[in-house]
Amino acid sequence: MAEQAEEKTKADENVVFIGSKPFMNYVTGVVMQFTKQGSSEVVIKARGKFISRAVDVAEVTTKRFLEDQNVEVKDIKIDSEEFENKEGKKVNVSTIEIMLGKK
Amino acid sequence: MAEQAEEKTKADENVVFIGSKPFMNYVTGVVMQFTKQGSSEVVIKARGKFISRAVDVAEVTTKRFLEDQNVEVKDIKIDSEEFENKEGKKVNVSTIEIMLGKK
Repeated sequence: MAEQAEEKTKADENVVFIGSKPFMNYVTGVVMQFTKQGSSEVVIKARGKFISRAVDVAEVTTKRFLEDQNVEVKDIKIDSEEFENKEGKKVNVSTIEIMLGKK
Repeated sequence: MAEQAEEKTKADENVVFIGSKPFMNYVTGVVMQFTKQGSSEVVIKARGKFISRAVDVAEVTTKRFLEDQNVEVKDIKIDSEEFENKEGKKVNVSTIEIMLGKK
């Protein structure tokens, strides 16, 4: 439930956070932000192994679903976050933010 | 052998192509380009699931190994490539290019 609430808040801020749900859920999420919510910018975020997926979502949405909407990749940022794993050990995980926006 | 030859050529052009070798091989490859070859720019490239790894390599090299060298992420590009899979079906794969350079 906590995770759902978090996702809702993030969606409100034009952020789509990539996880392990079916791929098309994320594509639809991004497309809807532009077409239904009228957003001019959407940020796709991911961490660790989901980074590859975030790039897939950005490519599929911009090249296959939003071509007519003149949406393109505006900026890409990478970074690292430190967190404690189950064993209490501090580990780093890479992050990505892909900014999509109208041309 | 063909793959080895290709990797050699790419390394000569200051490109490190990320695959399934041990993680530190790629980190060392990037670090050596800057420290031993005296390159002012290195491009980390990857396709598909190796994209997450490319981001890890960029983060680890810039933040842990090349901090003193003033190396930072200069630019990131994503794209798609079409290729034929084993069944002869055309499929798309996402690609990433992470440009590292001296500040």
